[in-house]
Formats: sequence, C-alpha cells, structure tokens
Amino acid sequence: MSLAGATQDEVRRHNLAALARFLHDHGSTSRSELVSHTGLNRSTVGGLIADLVSSGLVRETEPVGRGVGRPSYGVEPVRERAYVLAIDLRVDRAIVALVGFGGDVLHRREHAFRKGQQREDRIVRETVQVCHEALAAAPQHSVLVGVGVGVPGLVRQPDGLVRFAPNLGWVDVPLGDLVADALGLSVPVVIGNDSDLGAVAERQRGSAVGASNVIYLSGQVGVGGGIVIDGRLLMGAQGYGGEIGHMRVNPRGRGCRCGAIGCWETEIGEPAVALSAGSPEGTSVAQIIEAAAAGDKDARKGLRTVGGWLGVGVANLVNIFNPDVIVFGGSLREILPATRDAVDAAVEGALAAPAEHVVLALPALGDDSTLLGAAESAFAALLDDPMGVVAGGVHRESRGLADVVSGR
Amino acid sequence: MSLAGATQDEVRRHNLAALARFLHDHGSTSRSELVSHTGLNRSTVGGLIADLVSSGLVRETEPVGRGVGRPSYGVEPVRERAYVLAIDLRVDRAIVALVGFGGDVLHRREHAFRKGQQREDRIVRETVQVCHEALAAAPQHSVLVGVGVGVPGLVRQPDGLVRFAPNLGWVDVPLGDLVADALGLSVPVVIGNDSDLGAVAERQRGSAVGASNVIYLSGQVGVGGGIVIDGRLLMGAQGYGGEIGHMRVNPRGRGCRCGAIGCWETEIGEPAVALSAGSPEGTSVAQIIEAAAAGDKDARKGLRTVGGWLGVGVANLVNIFNPDVIVFGGSLREILPATRDAVDAAVEGALAAPAEHVVLALPALGDDSTLLGAAESAFAALLDDPMGVVAGGVHRESRGLADVVSGR
Repeated sequence: MSLAGATQDEVRRHNLAALARFLHDHGSTSRSELVSHTGLNRSTVGGLIADLVSSGLVRETEPVGRGVGRPSYGVEPVRERAYVLAIDLRVDRAIVALVGFGGDVLHRREHAFRKGQQREDRIVRETVQVCHEALAAAPQHSVLVGVGVGVPGLVRQPDGLVRFAPNLGWVDVPLGDLVADALGLSVPVVIGNDSDLGAVAERQRGSAVGASNVIYLSGQVGVGGGIVIDGRLLMGAQGYGGEIGHMRVNPRGRGCRCGAIGCWETEIGEPAVALSAGSPEGTSVAQIIEAAAAGDKDARKGLRTVGGWLGVGVANLVNIFNPDVIVFGGSLREILPATRDAVDAAVEGALAAPAEHVVLALPALGDDSTLLGAAESAFAALLDDPMGVVAGGVHRESRGLADVVSGR
Repeated sequence: MSLAGATQDEVRRHNLAALARFLHDHGSTSRSELVSHTGLNRSTVGGLIADLVSSGLVRETEPVGRGVGRPSYGVEPVRERAYVLAIDLRVDRAIVALVGFGGDVLHRREHAFRKGQQREDRIVRETVQVCHEALAAAPQHSVLVGVGVGVPGLVRQPDGLVRFAPNLGWVDVPLGDLVADALGLSVPVVIGNDSDLGAVAERQRGSAVGASNVIYLSGQVGVGGGIVIDGRLLMGAQGYGGEIGHMRVNPRGRGCRCGAIGCWETEIGEPAVALSAGSPEGTSVAQIIEAAAAGDKDARKGLRTVGGWLGVGVANLVNIFNPDVIVFGGSLREILPATRDAVDAAVEGALAAPAEHVVLALPALGDDSTLLGAAESAFAALLDDPMGVVAGGVHRESRGLADVVSGR
C-alpha cells in the first residue's frame, strides 16, 4: 500500500491492519517484536495495541524474557472475539469449521453426502444445515466476520460462480449466491478453488512458509493445483488458471470427466489407484497401499503405475514452474510416500537446475489445508480493518479470491 | 514506485523516466496526450519535455490537429540519439541489430554458424565479430546504452550464466561475462531466455499489446515458452521457469536432448516435422508445408501428426494458465497455419471457460520478437534514468531480466 497522500486516519488503519495480520499469523508476540516488525516507534505501537485491546481482539500477556531494562509485555490474539465459518466442499462430503482470530479451529464437523447426490441444491442445503449446527457452537459474544468456501472446480471471481466442477457434475452453479442466501448472514462469502486455498494455507501456516514459488496439489477424485508464483496466486485471465489435473500426459489413457483423453487426474486420482491395481471400483487408496505393504503383487504393480504417472506430471511442473516447494495434499498425502522412489526418479529426469532446487513435501496442515485456506480467505475483511469490523462494519459483498489472499 | 518521502530530484527523475518510457513505446505524441497520460499539469510536462529536448533524446514536432485554442506541439523520440545492441543467438545463427530509442531497427545483420560448431568460445567469437561490424554502422554522436542477448536455454539471473541449453549443447556457460569481455564495452549486458524476450516484445509492440496473461511459444530445434502472468514474467524460484518444451506429452515418444522421453519439443520442434513426414533429416518446415500443399500424402500425414501434438500441448497450456493470448513464434509461425484445424479442435477439447477466452495469434513482429525483446531489455537503464544515461552515466553492471522488464 502506498501511503503517499494518505490521511492520518488511513495511516492508522493501515498500521492496525498490519499489527492484526501479524498477530493472526504469528500468535503471541512481544511488543519488541512488533516494534521491530512494523518499523514504528514504541509509543505508536503501544497506542495501536491499546486500540486492539479495547476492541477485544487482543489481550496483553505477562512479560516474556527477563532482559535488562523495562520488561516487554506481550500481546496475543483473542480467538473467541472474532471467528469465520470455513467450508471444504468435496465430492463425497463437506467439512465445516469455525476458526477463531489467530487461526485456531474452534469447532469442526464433517458430513458425508450420499453417493450420487451431488445436485447443487441438495449439496448446499445439507451443507448449510451443518453450518447452522456449527454456528450454534460459536463462543458467546464472538463476531462472525466472514465465510470461506473451497470447491473442486473453476470459480469465477469475484461472484463465486462455479463455471465447471467436473467431478461434482456442476456447470455454472452460482455457489456464492446459493450459500449466502441459504445461510442468511450479512457477512462476505468468498468462494475459492480448493487447491488455491490449500496453497494459501500451506504458505501461511504449513509446509511452504517463507517460499515464494509453491504448488499445492490436491488429490481427490480429480486433481487440482494451487500455484503461487513470486508470492501471488496464479489466477490467469479470468481466474481459471491452475487446472493441472487436466494436463494431458497419456494419449492412450482413460477418458476424463472433462471430455478429453489421458488427463493427469485419470492416472493419479483416487479411482485410478484402484483401476491400476485391478481392484474393485471403490477400493480406497489406503486399502491398496495396505495390500501392497502386505505383499499383494497387483497392488504393488498398481502403485508403481500410479507412481510413474505422478512422477511424469510432477517433472512437468518442475520444468514449467521452477517451484521452491510442491505440497502433496488430499489422497496424494498417502500416494506420495507409497510411490516416492518413482516420483524422485522422475524429478531427477527433469531439467537439472530446477530439479535440484525443488522440495517435495507433505502438507503440515494434514487434511485441513483447503479448510484453513477457506478460513484465511474469510478473515480478509477483518484483517484489512480490524476496528471497523469488530465494531459491526462487515457487510455482505463480493470479494475476489486474488484480492483477498494477496492483500491487493 | 511509491513516492512517499521522495525528494524533488527523485520525483523529477521518476517523471522523466515515465515520459521517456511513453515516448519510447508510443512514438510521436502530442503534449495533450502526455498531460493526460501522466496526470501532471501542463507546465510540469513542458519543463520535463524541455529537459528531454536539451538531452537530444526527443524533438518537438509541428502542431497536430487544428482544434480551438493554442495548437498542441507534439514530441517524438530521436532514434539516432541513443541505441542498443540486440542479439538473438540461435542454434544455427546469430541475428544482430542496432535498435534506436523509440524502437526502430537502425541496422540488422545475420550470421549463420557452420553446422556442429556450437562450442561457446567459437559462437561468442563469431557473434562478437558481427556485433563490431554492426557497431561500425552506428549513427554518429549516438550513445550506446546497453546490450541485450536472447538465448535458447535456462539463464541464471542476474549474471547471465546459461545453466543449460540442450540444443546448443551448453552447460554452465557464463555467457554474460563472455559477451561483455569480448565486446569490451562499458554498458550493461542483459542475457535472457529467447522465449521470455519474445513475450516481452510481443506484449510491448506486437500481437499481445494490452494483454496481461500471455504465452509466447518459440519454435526452433527445441520449443521454449515465455509466460506472462498478470503482467509479470514467470521466472520461478531461480529464473528457470517456462520450460514448456520439456512438458512430457508422449510416453511412447522420442528421446529428447534433455534426457527424457516424449517431451513436447520432440513432437513439434523443427526436426520432428521432417521425421513425422518421413522426409530426410534436414528437410525444412517450409519444404514440408509446400509438399503438403502440393498434395504429398506423407507430408500431409506428417503435418496432421505434428498438429495433433501441437494441439495437445496448447490445450494443456490453456488449462494450466488461462491465458488471454498465445503467440506462435519461430517455426511455429509456419506450423500453426498449416495445422490450424487440429490445433483449434484440441483447444476446443480443453476446459470450456479458458478455451472460449484464449486467442491464438501469430507474432506481429514476425521473426524478430526475440531480437526486439533483447533490445527492450537493453533499454531499461536508459528508460529508468534518461538524463543520467545520455550524460554518460551508464556503467557495466549485472541486471536481472525480471527487474529489467517488469520495471521492478
């Protein structure tokens, strides 16, 4: 943010936002750290903290350390003061959480959809029902500041229309409006691609903290990619970028739900693992990995096949993006360790300069990367204007994911 | 550039740079346009123009238009006042040009390398010889302000070490130092990947003006990609991003110079066209297209095969990047029109939302996209500080391509 010509109020709001963001990301912090992080002087930081304390968003903590001179009191986020509703909408279930300021999960519940029941009205109705149950468990006097939803599909920004979600069978579903109307809340609703949100969360609190070039792979029935380049999410011209699951790698491969042949996700998505092992449809990835560990030849052969294709796509991503870190999320959390040799060999076959640099990682946030990324997208309004929002200034509005997560 | 806290001198330099950049990009311009473009008042613009006129970089032109009130004198860049040396280094030849302020090519020459003579010392020696011949043709009293070089390989920034150029057979060649030493000039030398420079030039003066998400494909023996996302070149963690020629698309395909099997460039690079048509090695793309047009069945079948693979890769790029424009440069300038049906069909098979949006284009700069992109990279020092540079303030220094072309 350029502060040329900013008024004193704007400067103060900007500084409050910077402090709130830092405390949300880092938790308990000493005043000295805040002084050194913000570059502001001690008394300005003191005044800003007093504002945040009066809003109830942060509280002072006992002095940390015992240095010479005045003790430095710390501050920490009050997680019960403000919270968001986060939804990870998958093909087979919805995961719903309340996440408090500072990033702690306050409440979490899952709901499995009945197989073949992916019509948007039913999905939204059932999901919103779970949301209401979750909201009933919210801390008293806490302020809901936003709703974030991750979905495995192409999402138009800023209105959250799902243009295409092949594995849900959705085309042009106005998910942002549907969720906002069904919830009946007056806070912003941000809809994001599941993998984009996974990348956001892993960069903020997970395996890719500090990395500027990150790819988060989300394996479910399909495979999505959240791609961060030089610190910014790859959105593309209209927000549909990152569909690496539909990179065609096998011209003699299987038909994909998108209509093409040989897309990467047809070789490494959940159903592909059972198919490659010759196991009955519906056999889980975990079952096949277990069978392979117990010596089952078909399972081992299937995993070798899947690992080979996983490696081909990963090597392509290394060549195309020269990333610092690739995070393997969703079902790929299980598949990567079971096929690691094949994947490593394929990466070694990529161009040496980027291959030597890249780190392959599992998500530090486990199965919750998308859920927590959805939470982060919903916190944006609060973090932009902490005092205004807790004073009741949140309004339902459309915000684009790119604006929300890169703070533009 | 944030101007908070900037001194008056810094503001003036910033404004001079903005005017020089605008005139360099747009040529002859009226004062009124400069006033409206810069947002500065008329007398400030007048003072800045007077400075640029005194430096010799711009001259006043006759009034354009006959509106009411005072006539608006125009200004235009003086192309003979300052120039750069641009080099497009290919596998089979070097193209060298002097390009004047404002972007006009003042002088251009080509030099073919003898086949199999790609040792870096010989290539550099022969290329520098051509450069000296070109420099002898420079306008009198003109100031050389920089050297830009495009090369088909992975280039480390900012020092211009070529980490890997498979089709030249180069590994870790310090091209920036070699060229600077051999030329013996005291101006900055910028080395860039050929496709990155092609993308820069086509966005600035070619088929992708005004587009924020652009892919420039450079077809030679290999295939490179210059990728612009949201207005910025995709560099990746270390500057090696964009190697889409090494996207593996055909697991049963040919061996690639990079060591892998089935890379995209083995199916659509220049040698692949002859191979697919069953023609003798060395048959040119133009010859095969001519034969196909004359009804030769093998040539037609070969082009169908190449077109199919070209389409697969282009569809992948559409799904991965959601670009506004893809520009087909180098040998792909000939291949795209000859295989257009197959490529269009493949793009229609990509995800609908990005596929409906993308435009496939030929380079408006013809065969010179990389050459002119190299020139632009070399103009950066002048455009940052026009008065300082023409006064003799250019020093040999290392500048990274990303800094140079995105003005960071």
